Amino acid sequence: MAIGGGTGLSVLLRGLKHHVGTERLRQLTGVVTVTDDGGSSGRLRRELGVLPPGDIRNCIAALADDEDLLTRLFQYRFPNGGGLLGHSFGNLFLTALTGITGDFHQAILTAESVLSVRGKIFPATLADVRLRGRGVSGRIYEGESAIGLSGEELAAVELDPANPPAFPQAVAALERADLILLGPGSLYTSILPNLLIPGIRQALVKTRARVVLLLNLMTQPGETDGMMGLDHLRALVRQAGEGIIDAVLVNSTPIPPPLIAHYAETGSVPVAVDRAVLEALGVEVHEADLLAADGDLIRHDPEKLARAVLELTPHSPAPLSRPSTHPAGERGAQERFSAN
Amino acid sequence: MAIGGGTGLSVLLRGLKHHVGTERLRQLTGVVTVTDDGGSSGRLRRELGVLPPGDIRNCIAALADDEDLLTRLFQYRFPNGGGLLGHSFGNLFLTALTGITGDFHQAILTAESVLSVRGKIFPATLADVRLRGRGVSGRIYEGESAIGLSGEELAAVELDPANPPAFPQAVAALERADLILLGPGSLYTSILPNLLIPGIRQALVKTRARVVLLLNLMTQPGETDGMMGLDHLRALVRQAGEGIIDAVLVNSTPIPPPLIAHYAETGSVPVAVDRAVLEALGVEVHEADLLAADGDLIRHDPEKLARAVLELTPHSPAPLSRPSTHPAGERGAQERFSAN
Repeated sequence: MAIGGGTGLSVLLRGLKHHVGTERLRQLTGVVTVTDDGGSSGRLRRELGVLPPGDIRNCIAALADDEDLLTRLFQYRFPNGGGLLGHSFGNLFLTALTGITGDFHQAILTAESVLSVRGKIFPATLADVRLRGRGVSGRIYEGESAIGLSGEELAAVELDPANPPAFPQAVAALERADLILLGPGSLYTSILPNLLIPGIRQALVKTRARVVLLLNLMTQPGETDGMMGLDHLRALVRQAGEGIIDAVLVNSTPIPPPLIAHYAETGSVPVAVDRAVLEALGVEVHEADLLAADGDLIRHDPEKLARAVLELTPHSPAPLSRPSTHPAGERGAQERFSAN
Repeated sequence: MAIGGGTGLSVLLRGLKHHVGTERLRQLTGVVTVTDDGGSSGRLRRELGVLPPGDIRNCIAALADDEDLLTRLFQYRFPNGGGLLGHSFGNLFLTALTGITGDFHQAILTAESVLSVRGKIFPATLADVRLRGRGVSGRIYEGESAIGLSGEELAAVELDPANPPAFPQAVAALERADLILLGPGSLYTSILPNLLIPGIRQALVKTRARVVLLLNLMTQPGETDGMMGLDHLRALVRQAGEGIIDAVLVNSTPIPPPLIAHYAETGSVPVAVDRAVLEALGVEVHEADLLAADGDLIRHDPEKLARAVLELTPHSPAPLSRPSTHPAGERGAQERFSAN
């Protein structure tokens, strides 16, 4: 059970999908924000009045077989063709199916079926909502794209209209889960938009699942400049209230200094975590090697992330009658396998 | 085995698909022209350099389950959305897949697989060819769209560039067939463009199959004004040579006079057939009730057309060793079931 949007969530799902059906991961569900207003999604939203399909498309594709021709088709962007330029085929798939059925979730279900995905994707809400940011200066940023480029510290984000109804199946999945993962991904534009939906927020408080924040490796210029681990948690509490986050998962592998220097040029720095401070606040801190080994990008390795996440699920493959020794086991007693 | 393009061919395939797998119709193959340059296909062709997908899309959809959501998706036209307006989803599917694989036929195969179609569709050629028309006045009409609107009697149509290579699998299917159907459909812009490809034309001469022209019910304003059955045959012989057409299938049901009067307003009149003249030319004339019963349109009924066509196939379900009593049986001796 993972919540987020954008690239971070798809990296997580891409890693976890290989474990679906194993003892530790009976089911995999992604809850995805629908506040994107940029690129192909933004154009479809403005021109055709659909919910933004891009983040959902990425997550569906992440749960499919990467090598499959249909998955490649789903992720294909038209390189030319006037009004087609830059549209990804999967976005058009979800848009056209929504046009036919009048039902965005039916479109998602059909895509999942065609791509034989290993998991389920739910939109956080079916309401047509936008994101609005408020900087500490009081300045207002209308729309997810504008927030991501704000360049100033954000005081808050809010949905417009406020308090949309949560998608019921997303709420049900959260309540039923054994493990819930927030992130990795943009704090204000991928994670928080979900938590601003009352039904989602309440489900996160109510669920018996362990809720783990997968902290970003680096700060995001224009959005989380200078924010360390504690700042991320504080922003979450300020916006969504107490009692949601049980634990954080952080990378333990040193990032090569040349990469850090390279990122520093854009104002992006590692998200440092002070274990003692977080633990004093009652938040478990888990560390693991999560770093992707290759390339010039500092990012999570899907498979390392997946393995570390699965370590956070109840260890015991015991039947229901046998109590688990893991703290999360009590919450998840009704379901043997976690990350439901 | 049917050859054509556009709406007429899809009507035929839509009727025949219900009989695929029966004794009389073991396999069903459509060979489709790729000279369309109008509408969504024309735009994709100009802007993305693909072969025109529209006629092929229609034929694939005709072979699929009409009620299936994916078939409806395939035929969905974007009602809005800037550059998406008027594009049909299936065209974008074939275009994107061609972009990924670099192979138009691979795109067709994938669409056939996703839609679980009952049959096979082959392009007549994979070459990027245009159609050029020459009126009796000597005037040149560049492109299929212009020809359809010429309004004058056509002396000839030709491909540009001339003599493209035929798609090998289309040729193989023609050579293997027991029954080959030309039309119904636009004589100059759907049927003849296929026959102008030397490999297709030669296969039609060489095949052991009975080749039947499914005559149009009405003349087509701007394209076949005033042309009766004999004129259609003459045009075919003039352009593609002798020895191709073995038989014609014509509608025997009187068209209601009010409908004829209505069509006359646009210059469209019934295509009359003089049986004696055609038979004197060595062409069999078969008649059957082919008329769609309902609506204000004069058109073929898919199911009636399919049944009449299947009557033209060898009657005997005999094993290979038992000679068929039907004239076409000898040609088709190597294959038990016709309309291969």
